[in-house]
Amino acid sequence: MNSVTGREVRLAKRPNGAPRPTDFEVVTVETPAPSAGQVLLKTRWISVDPMIRIAIDANPLGGGVKPLPIGAAPPGPAVAEVIASAHPDYKVGDIVQGRLGWRDHLLSDGAGLQRVDPGMAPLSHFLGVLGLPGFSAYVGLKVCGELGPGQTVLVSGAAGAVGSLFGPLAKLTGADVVGIASGEARCRALTETLSYDRAVDRAAPDFEARLAAAVPSGVDLYFENVGGPMFDQVLPLLNLHGRVTICGLMAQYVDDGEHPGPDRLPGVLERMMARGLTLRAFRNGDFPQLREPFLAEVGALLREGKLAIPEHVTEGIENVPAAFCRLFSDTVVGKSVVRV
Amino acid sequence: MNSVTGREVRLAKRPNGAPRPTDFEVVTVETPAPSAGQVLLKTRWISVDPMIRIAIDANPLGGGVKPLPIGAAPPGPAVAEVIASAHPDYKVGDIVQGRLGWRDHLLSDGAGLQRVDPGMAPLSHFLGVLGLPGFSAYVGLKVCGELGPGQTVLVSGAAGAVGSLFGPLAKLTGADVVGIASGEARCRALTETLSYDRAVDRAAPDFEARLAAAVPSGVDLYFENVGGPMFDQVLPLLNLHGRVTICGLMAQYVDDGEHPGPDRLPGVLERMMARGLTLRAFRNGDFPQLREPFLAEVGALLREGKLAIPEHVTEGIENVPAAFCRLFSDTVVGKSVVRV
Repeated sequence: MNSVTGREVRLAKRPNGAPRPTDFEVVTVETPAPSAGQVLLKTRWISVDPMIRIAIDANPLGGGVKPLPIGAAPPGPAVAEVIASAHPDYKVGDIVQGRLGWRDHLLSDGAGLQRVDPGMAPLSHFLGVLGLPGFSAYVGLKVCGELGPGQTVLVSGAAGAVGSLFGPLAKLTGADVVGIASGEARCRALTETLSYDRAVDRAAPDFEARLAAAVPSGVDLYFENVGGPMFDQVLPLLNLHGRVTICGLMAQYVDDGEHPGPDRLPGVLERMMARGLTLRAFRNGDFPQLREPFLAEVGALLREGKLAIPEHVTEGIENVPAAFCRLFSDTVVGKSVVRV
Repeated sequence: MNSVTGREVRLAKRPNGAPRPTDFEVVTVETPAPSAGQVLLKTRWISVDPMIRIAIDANPLGGGVKPLPIGAAPPGPAVAEVIASAHPDYKVGDIVQGRLGWRDHLLSDGAGLQRVDPGMAPLSHFLGVLGLPGFSAYVGLKVCGELGPGQTVLVSGAAGAVGSLFGPLAKLTGADVVGIASGEARCRALTETLSYDRAVDRAAPDFEARLAAAVPSGVDLYFENVGGPMFDQVLPLLNLHGRVTICGLMAQYVDDGEHPGPDRLPGVLERMMARGLTLRAFRNGDFPQLREPFLAEVGALLREGKLAIPEHVTEGIENVPAAFCRLFSDTVVGKSVVRV
């Protein structure tokens, strides 16, 4: 076969605060035919994820990770089809996933590719409930310690790709599960389709009073996807020996990196001491041993129809930047994916 | 018997920053003979502890606990002898301990008293290695997760009443144990008598460079007794999946409660995410089930001569305020006690 002409979304400039579509550019690229040991992939679905905002920051996680260079394609997860193969393990028509990046064609030597069973679920699910966000929710549930009846679980970013699976999984333990999301539509989705017992609208002017009223027995586990001021609003609601599992800090990804004060850390540490609290962050890449149980357990729940899977679908690779930026605008319920 | 004339140390005014002896007053009090169901106690040893600085603060732990009223005696632990009894369970000569307060005589109905076996150890040890500080070290070790060879443990306030037991206990797991203390004398005590592998002098002008050099393989567990700026100095040294066990925040007890900024919390949360860190605080009162194993295990180590027990002894109840204030002056090694 000849080379193929396709498109790639590249970082054009670093966002300051919330990202804008103009921070990216869509360019035409030629991808050659595969050499020996290579496969040529055609992307079917691209995932847009808040974590990409970390990767493109000038100083990701305060220097904890390296920034993506200007001109590079963000390494977003994607599902793709093998359209030409010179690799002994892959044949045309195979479906794979991996951090393939925001592009519609890619040469790969197979490193980092995972096979997808297209009979198991719709392909886009491998970017959501069966992909990294789902895996984050699953790992988060495993590391947050024992949950069950009589315990109150509070989830921020509850309508997001992670929260929309974490809530239902936490509910299956028998715990009382309360979600925080922004806007009435998202809050309705939490209680009507996502198994949450109660929802609190972060955009309401009396948010703090509503939040306190929604957890009359306090909070035993706070599953944190947002950070920023919400962290402080939840902290006083934690019960003795309360736990915070930090999965994401979406509000902080888009702040300007300036934190003038007052310094909240001394008060947080003192409250931790007064109440015997635990804060734990996890990185899902550190739990490869949970990948098979995750696919088995969540796959079974899907087959049994026990999980609602909200998806927000955008059409066309040229709209990947807009879909990504929409993540930060409080309008999306569930996993955001782009059909290529 | 008649009433007895004794003395009591009372809070005269709330300290601003580091406490001073003039924040307290020593007053003469009459204690009546015991009524039915009561014992009259004569104090033998009084413990002075940093945690009392929390109790006498205007806003203890950011409102997490109630402040001690002005005019009240701080509820410090003490060991006392029964000198008159109208209580069926106690006879003259029995030795007890409890939060008896900074006074030399006390009527008690037995609530909160624990019997002490005077044959087990010198009485002052029941305020130190076998008392609350020792118990804090023991509980801290149990809640901080698995330790052993190949792991690096870093302890702040290492020469204090808790650190002087935590270090040796951590060393018994086979871990590499590094202590932070202020001043050369304290640092010498860490390595020469307290089983620490290395010591870092917090008062050295190049403290941060020395600290980094002392933990060439990074830190797996940080046992925090100090808080304040040291927390930030240690955080970048934590290994992937590093743990911080918060036992005390001595530096914060004496700050003025003003924390103008910059706000360190966002950076701490982001670093936790980037490195998969866990922060856990504990309150030793929440682990009554560990009290018997603690006395058995640490008691056995004492009998076998496997623990050095540094003590700083002050004479006379009138010197309790001075002994307490000395805790904040970097001159004491081990447990501070007052012989009454």
